[in-house]
Amino acid sequence: MTETPTYTPPAIWTWEKASGGRFANINRPIAGATHEKALPVGRHPLQLYSLATPNGQKVTILLEELLELGHAGAEYDAWLIRIGDGDQFGSGFVGVNPNSKIPALLDRSGAEPIRVFESGAILMHLAEKFGALLPTAPAARAECLSWLFWQMGSAPYLGGGFGHFYAYAPVKIEYAIDRFAMEAKRQLDVLDRRLAESAFIAGPDYTIADIAIWPWYGGLVRGAAYDAAEFLSVHEYANVVRWAAAIADRPAVRRGRIVNRIVGDPSEQLHERHDAGDFLTGTEDKRAPASS
Amino acid sequence: MTETPTYTPPAIWTWEKASGGRFANINRPIAGATHEKALPVGRHPLQLYSLATPNGQKVTILLEELLELGHAGAEYDAWLIRIGDGDQFGSGFVGVNPNSKIPALLDRSGAEPIRVFESGAILMHLAEKFGALLPTAPAARAECLSWLFWQMGSAPYLGGGFGHFYAYAPVKIEYAIDRFAMEAKRQLDVLDRRLAESAFIAGPDYTIADIAIWPWYGGLVRGAAYDAAEFLSVHEYANVVRWAAAIADRPAVRRGRIVNRIVGDPSEQLHERHDAGDFLTGTEDKRAPASS
Repeated sequence: MTETPTYTPPAIWTWEKASGGRFANINRPIAGATHEKALPVGRHPLQLYSLATPNGQKVTILLEELLELGHAGAEYDAWLIRIGDGDQFGSGFVGVNPNSKIPALLDRSGAEPIRVFESGAILMHLAEKFGALLPTAPAARAECLSWLFWQMGSAPYLGGGFGHFYAYAPVKIEYAIDRFAMEAKRQLDVLDRRLAESAFIAGPDYTIADIAIWPWYGGLVRGAAYDAAEFLSVHEYANVVRWAAAIADRPAVRRGRIVNRIVGDPSEQLHERHDAGDFLTGTEDKRAPASS
Repeated sequence: MTETPTYTPPAIWTWEKASGGRFANINRPIAGATHEKALPVGRHPLQLYSLATPNGQKVTILLEELLELGHAGAEYDAWLIRIGDGDQFGSGFVGVNPNSKIPALLDRSGAEPIRVFESGAILMHLAEKFGALLPTAPAARAECLSWLFWQMGSAPYLGGGFGHFYAYAPVKIEYAIDRFAMEAKRQLDVLDRRLAESAFIAGPDYTIADIAIWPWYGGLVRGAAYDAAEFLSVHEYANVVRWAAAIADRPAVRRGRIVNRIVGDPSEQLHERHDAGDFLTGTEDKRAPASS
């Protein structure tokens, strides 16, 4: 291991705005709003405030799957939250999600608006609301919930751990990269063994467990995350690769993954989504110009 | 920031059994069983395989709360899984939880046993099974789910991030400690602001969101985790301190938190729990001798 100079933490941690890499300017040790700003509200029952990170993609993919299944009540407005600009610290957003993270949902279909935050909670809320993509039989439901929560507890090691230290931190720290690369590979192996015995994560049927896991681990094996496909030898996880490709081909996934997307090929960016027609060819004017 | 020598990761990560701190011997880049070993099964409908880490405590606290509420069907056998000895890699355990983490539950109350893994999924499964501690009205349920998932996605930064780099890693890395201390404090502030407006996390009623959050963040402000109370200035989060103390006084919590506990004061260790009488004074023979 690379020699690291001895460091002794102080007795009490204090906030010095040291370099923290790519996301340094949006990490803070305090919660709450930094500025007053109301959120826009569109015409649909569901108002989503998000960005097409893996956690954001989960929700737009589920909404597109629900619409594909004929649930007209799943029509939604997807508003762009630019986390690099601090939109998540506006007072309106903090009112919907006091944790200041995307995605956040305001469900206005009832008498009083209901706020839902955390991507896993939004998936549960929508799946229960429409009675879709979440089994109700006890054994199948337990398996689906187990894998759904597996994703929630595991991905922080992939994103906040491996991705941060491998791709974003201002300095490469061997110990941290090794720690989180090992865990990322273990997680991929957990999925690979599961998908060797089952078409989908929770069993023979596609569920919100797949929708939760695909944007993170499907993205990783498809080479879309952290430029780490070779480093993690993702081709070794053949069952994950097969499953990820099958899900990528679903029409709802092809739509859902580009909503609130502001990077990559302009044809794969739909900054905001307010109508099913927004996806149609010929409406490039609703799409974004290329950006960073 | 302390100067760190430049490090360039290799093209392909490989497993070298380098020093990884306190838990180095149980971290692996591959999943699956390392040895054949069946799990014991007791007489109750619910068989829990666990250890009294924060994630383990969630489940035993909920089970004791359910028994306190009069749900006799929540009687359980709690078997000890010594993760330091690799019990979680036995074939029986892996069959219940392919992710090889505690807690894992086998629900044998129906025709076929149902496996449930991930503490959040176990809380959901039990709360739905007994119709308790998880609201069913849409707004209250959404709020409870939001905070339940908040805990699942947040605690990895507290445990696998802050706790690891501050307390367990073989070398103190300033950048990593700063990164995760900042996030731990932000999370405490999120909770503190919430508990300034609400008696419990999800509203006026105690729910599985409290049960999920208390072992991690309650433990932190009570000084029971990582010896970091001063470092993180936990006294600043007065609402969390108030809430944590109130929950600590609940009879079910006082029982649940010591089940499968193998460290600390011997009077607070109940290595296995197979009967409500196991908690009674005078049954010290069922308790453990002092250990590490």
